Amino acid sequence: MLTKTRLIKDLEKILPRANVLTELEERYVYSQDAANLPDIKKIADAVVFVENIEEVQQVVKTASKHKIPVICRGAGTNVVGACTVEHGGIILNFSRMNKILEINRQNMTARVQPGVIVGELQKQAEALGLYYPPDPSNLAVSTIGGSIAQSSGGARTFKYGSTKDYILDLKVVMANGEILQTGSNTIKNATGYNLGSLFIGSEGTLGIIVEATVKLIPKPQTRQVVMAYFDRISEAVNAVDSIIEQQIFPTTLDFMDKNALQTVEKFYPSGLLTDKEAALIIEIDGFAAAVDYQKNIILSILQNAKASAIQSSSNEEEYNHIWRARRSSMGACAKLKPNVTTDDVIVPRQNLAKLVLGIRKICEKYNLEVCMVGHVGDGSVHPQIPIDYRDEDEYNRLKLAKSEIYDLTSKLGGILSGEHGIGSAKRDYINMVVNPLALEYMRMIKKTFDPDNILNPYKIF
Amino acid sequence: MLTKTRLIKDLEKILPRANVLTELEERYVYSQDAANLPDIKKIADAVVFVENIEEVQQVVKTASKHKIPVICRGAGTNVVGACTVEHGGIILNFSRMNKILEINRQNMTARVQPGVIVGELQKQAEALGLYYPPDPSNLAVSTIGGSIAQSSGGARTFKYGSTKDYILDLKVVMANGEILQTGSNTIKNATGYNLGSLFIGSEGTLGIIVEATVKLIPKPQTRQVVMAYFDRISEAVNAVDSIIEQQIFPTTLDFMDKNALQTVEKFYPSGLLTDKEAALIIEIDGFAAAVDYQKNIILSILQNAKASAIQSSSNEEEYNHIWRARRSSMGACAKLKPNVTTDDVIVPRQNLAKLVLGIRKICEKYNLEVCMVGHVGDGSVHPQIPIDYRDEDEYNRLKLAKSEIYDLTSKLGGILSGEHGIGSAKRDYINMVVNPLALEYMRMIKKTFDPDNILNPYKIF
Repeated sequence: MLTKTRLIKDLEKILPRANVLTELEERYVYSQDAANLPDIKKIADAVVFVENIEEVQQVVKTASKHKIPVICRGAGTNVVGACTVEHGGIILNFSRMNKILEINRQNMTARVQPGVIVGELQKQAEALGLYYPPDPSNLAVSTIGGSIAQSSGGARTFKYGSTKDYILDLKVVMANGEILQTGSNTIKNATGYNLGSLFIGSEGTLGIIVEATVKLIPKPQTRQVVMAYFDRISEAVNAVDSIIEQQIFPTTLDFMDKNALQTVEKFYPSGLLTDKEAALIIEIDGFAAAVDYQKNIILSILQNAKASAIQSSSNEEEYNHIWRARRSSMGACAKLKPNVTTDDVIVPRQNLAKLVLGIRKICEKYNLEVCMVGHVGDGSVHPQIPIDYRDEDEYNRLKLAKSEIYDLTSKLGGILSGEHGIGSAKRDYINMVVNPLALEYMRMIKKTFDPDNILNPYKIF
Repeated sequence: MLTKTRLIKDLEKILPRANVLTELEERYVYSQDAANLPDIKKIADAVVFVENIEEVQQVVKTASKHKIPVICRGAGTNVVGACTVEHGGIILNFSRMNKILEINRQNMTARVQPGVIVGELQKQAEALGLYYPPDPSNLAVSTIGGSIAQSSGGARTFKYGSTKDYILDLKVVMANGEILQTGSNTIKNATGYNLGSLFIGSEGTLGIIVEATVKLIPKPQTRQVVMAYFDRISEAVNAVDSIIEQQIFPTTLDFMDKNALQTVEKFYPSGLLTDKEAALIIEIDGFAAAVDYQKNIILSILQNAKASAIQSSSNEEEYNHIWRARRSSMGACAKLKPNVTTDDVIVPRQNLAKLVLGIRKICEKYNLEVCMVGHVGDGSVHPQIPIDYRDEDEYNRLKLAKSEIYDLTSKLGGILSGEHGIGSAKRDYINMVVNPLALEYMRMIKKTFDPDNILNPYKIF
């Protein structure tokens, strides 16, 4: 208790008093994230709002002195409990370090603070004819710092890759408060080890990202989206295979399963076909002539693949109408029960149909509802399971189902997380897919970078 | 000497006798690489040809027992002395581990042994309608293992990224002989730390890559190339800026300077304009309609940018004719003197013209010829300097010039290597661009991964 008072006094010495929150209610609010994990109920000792790099360094030095955890928080949108509090400590809130420091049109780069909203970076880049492709589905609120820490993907990964492919340089505050620069403001870099990549997806456990330089590309001229329904999951996957065999290169190859279609239609009626097993949502972007060319081939492949009710956008309004169904899935699912969990298991695409059907069987076995959406192109599924965490029996069934889903994923050559991270939610399962030696090296790196284990401790493993 | 005999006996126990080379001439041949560094004259104790992963493990365990270096070698094409021998040891030759183990059309991945020739992987993928974009300029001979170890780029980096963006999974033999699997056979992976990226560009100093799973993309339908000449370097760079401002997305935006044009024309006459300061070579690929669209815009931008003698390919023969000039540059330059050195300094694109003009001035100051080619889109320059290493005075002038070139690169916000690596050639300069803390963390990682310093020791730093 004495230590805690000292901690807060120390924090108030280095930050404006208004930026150090110590009331129970304030600390409670920032001690959970969008995962809303019921097992994790600890509360931070303090929540601090930082406004510059020096303040971050001072906070970390203070935490290091007191040997207490520092947990970074952008918008708290992550769904794996990566910014929950498990052993007290300081929540380091980046929401006020939210400036786009520079968009350099000639170099095609942007330099940003970690609290910048991903969607805002996209908007500002697009205004200059540039493009930041990574698009986590919560991009209207999620921050760039969080998306780097969690190695976010999104619907455009198939064509454009994920966050990791766009990070050129990071400034990172290390566990001792020193600043590490990981790369350079150049498109390529083969000068020494690739330190930056270590921080991408490290969930704040190796260092605290305080600035990022990201690569931008020319903004695609136009985009269109096609939607079609199938009587079987496997038919939808086969249609995707046929599209790729024709050397078409869509931006997005997403799907929704029957339950997802029904749930969205129930809460946001828009004329979705609720008796179909699956829908594909296929986006193409680029130069208008190439988009038209690809769309026509896609339409003819879909017709041959027994798809029904094929529709395609011819303007931005129709584009948004089609996407709304896919984007509403998580929100609709959340209306079924007090809580909803999602996941991001991923397998080689040839095993995707098996994974989707297997997840459905597992959920049936445990009497759980599941709405599945995902990225067929990437082999990735988001099983969204509505749940009431207060119902102990249901929660236990969920845990058993999750374990079986991870086991199935592993058997199909896949991995626990494609784009959300591991956090607290999946750390007990990581050894199902990551071999012991790789875990050993991860632990050695953690120990080298953070010997006192103060940076977001006990996350990932 | 006793130890050496024991070493060879140990190696002959684990490998077929014919795969252990011990004669002086044999060891000499494999103890240098394409950098041909005159300062490095040591010779390996043995050269071994490995044929499977188990043999690699045994060789590394033997090296570990004797505490002697293991230096991996693919085709030896690297230009920074990354596979030279500085302290004896075993050359581990991968030329017989050269099988493409699988190209999975549906998953769009390939699994390869390290000795696979990059160009061969491209060819096999393209036969299936797939595409492996990284194209180091020596791709007809260089190996995939080497290209990963050196973090190779190539002319297509502007549009497609570099080698690091295509590596999904690696099998790596660690210093103690154990096998580490770094990732998964999936397009995305946010499951634990990104161990794989650490090995990309680590030049064999952290572990030995024995298998790689790479990402493939749909093969572009067609490609065309445009060439144009300019009276000033800055005009060429400005033209590139204008192209990107129009949201055109070329595959390649390369350049040749006057000396490169003159030298190529001297040895391989093909009608190049030798009185011009620079030529741009611009490639566009993708769907035919989009390629035509972009080409027309590029042609009109070039006309407005005071370019002269603009030509463009309308078939594969013309395409190859235009590219031949750029591709012949290193070979032509090598004809001027007994040796030629190249480099791969890189800056933010807005500083590229300053870098090119600065390098020319530095070389004039030290009375050295220089042919410059490079990737304008990436801000990267290859100054190719013909030299006679036997001429001690000339060699000393080269060293002074290199140091000044690195200093200028650093001042222009750039970095020592974009796509070749550091090896032995640039290790004394790495602290000019990488800050001390980053170097400290690199050294800590090296020590964690290779405590006895047996894996390609003393390279990079």
